Amino acid sequence: MKLHGYFRSSASYRVRIALNLKGLVADQSFHHLRKGEQRSPEFLKLNPQGLVPAFITDNGDVLTQSLAIIEYLDETHPEPPLLPRDALTRAKARAFAQVIACDIHPVQNLKVLNGLRKLGADDAAVNKWAADLNFEGLAACEALVAGGTSRFLFGDAPGLAEICLIPQMHNARRFGADVSGFTRLLSVEAECAKLPAFISAAPDRQPDAE
Amino acid sequence: MKLHGYFRSSASYRVRIALNLKGLVADQSFHHLRKGEQRSPEFLKLNPQGLVPAFITDNGDVLTQSLAIIEYLDETHPEPPLLPRDALTRAKARAFAQVIACDIHPVQNLKVLNGLRKLGADDAAVNKWAADLNFEGLAACEALVAGGTSRFLFGDAPGLAEICLIPQMHNARRFGADVSGFTRLLSVEAECAKLPAFISAAPDRQPDAE
Repeated sequence: MKLHGYFRSSASYRVRIALNLKGLVADQSFHHLRKGEQRSPEFLKLNPQGLVPAFITDNGDVLTQSLAIIEYLDETHPEPPLLPRDALTRAKARAFAQVIACDIHPVQNLKVLNGLRKLGADDAAVNKWAADLNFEGLAACEALVAGGTSRFLFGDAPGLAEICLIPQMHNARRFGADVSGFTRLLSVEAECAKLPAFISAAPDRQPDAE
Repeated sequence: MKLHGYFRSSASYRVRIALNLKGLVADQSFHHLRKGEQRSPEFLKLNPQGLVPAFITDNGDVLTQSLAIIEYLDETHPEPPLLPRDALTRAKARAFAQVIACDIHPVQNLKVLNGLRKLGADDAAVNKWAADLNFEGLAACEALVAGGTSRFLFGDAPGLAEICLIPQMHNARRFGADVSGFTRLLSVEAECAKLPAFISAAPDRQPDAE
C-alpha cells in the first residue's frame, strides 16, 4: 500500500494516524501543495480532485477522501477498531469527525484561502476567516462531547474522532484560534500526545517537513 | 424518529432521500435558515453547530451530520443497503459522497456565501464562487465514475452516492454551473428521477417550500 500525501495536509495526517493505529506500514509519496504538485497530470490520474491524500491498495486500486480511506482500513484490518461498536455511538463518532472533515477543514484549506485572496481579502482577513472557522467548529465539537469522562472521546481507545481532532487542533493553533476553553478536547488531545501512533504521524516528523 | 430540516438544505434533502429509500417515515420539523431559526437557543441544544439536519431517534437520542445519520439509518435498518457490499466499492461510494459532502457543499453553503459578502464580494462574485465550486467538484465526481455502465453509480440500486449527488446537481443548476458535460452523472440522475424516494424528497415537495 502507498499513501500519497503532504506533511502539512490535515487529511493526509489523518490517514497517517490511522495507519499507525492499525500497525500498518505504507510507502509514502509526498506532493508539495504550495508548489501545485497535486495538480500535475500524473497526480490528477490518481485523484481528479487534485487533492491529497490518495491511497493505493495492495491490489493497486486507488482510493481518495481521507474518511473513506480510513473506514476502508478499518473494514479490511478490523483490529483495533477505529469506530465504537454500537450504532448510536458510532454515529456520534462519525458526526464528530464530519464536523471537522466537512465543516471546518475544507472551508479553511489552502485552495479556499487562495480563493479568498482572489476576491480581494488581505492576509489579516484570510487569517481571521480560518481562525474563526476553527474556533466555531471546535466549539461545536466541544459541545458535542462536553461532560464526557472516558479517556478518549467515545471510549477507552482513540479512533476516527481523535484522528480528525488532532490535526485540526494543530491547524487551529497555526491560525491563532484560542482553543484554551475546550477542556474536553484538550484532555483527549493530551492523551493522544502520549501515543506513538499520533506522535510519529505529526507533520514535523515527515520526511518532506520544512 | 424526527428530522429537523429545511426544504432547501442539501444535507436535509439527503436524509429525506435515505429515509424514503428505507421506507421509513419520520416526523419533520422545519427551520427557516434564511431567518436564522437554526441559531435559536432551543435548536442549538439539538445541534451546537446551528446547522440542519438534526435527527432524533426513536429513543430520543440526537444525531447530527447528514452522512453520519444516513450510515446510522443504514446500520439500524439494513435493507435495502445504501452502501456496496465489498469494502473497496464501499470506499469508492463513500469517497464520491465525501467529494460532495466535504469539498463542494460546505464551501458553497449559505453561511460561507454570507461570509464572502462580509469580505466585500458582490453578488456576481459570490455566485461565481458557488458555480465554480460546483462545476469543479462535480467534474471530479464525473471523472471518478466515468466509463461506468451500471444503472446507478456503484451498482444496480441507488445509495449514499446518489443521495449526495442529486441534491448537489440541484444546487449546481441553481448557481448556474454547466452540468451538461457530466454524462455519467446525468444518466444516473435520470434514473433517480424515476424513483418515488427521490421525487418526494425534492425541496419543492416539502411543506416549508417557498
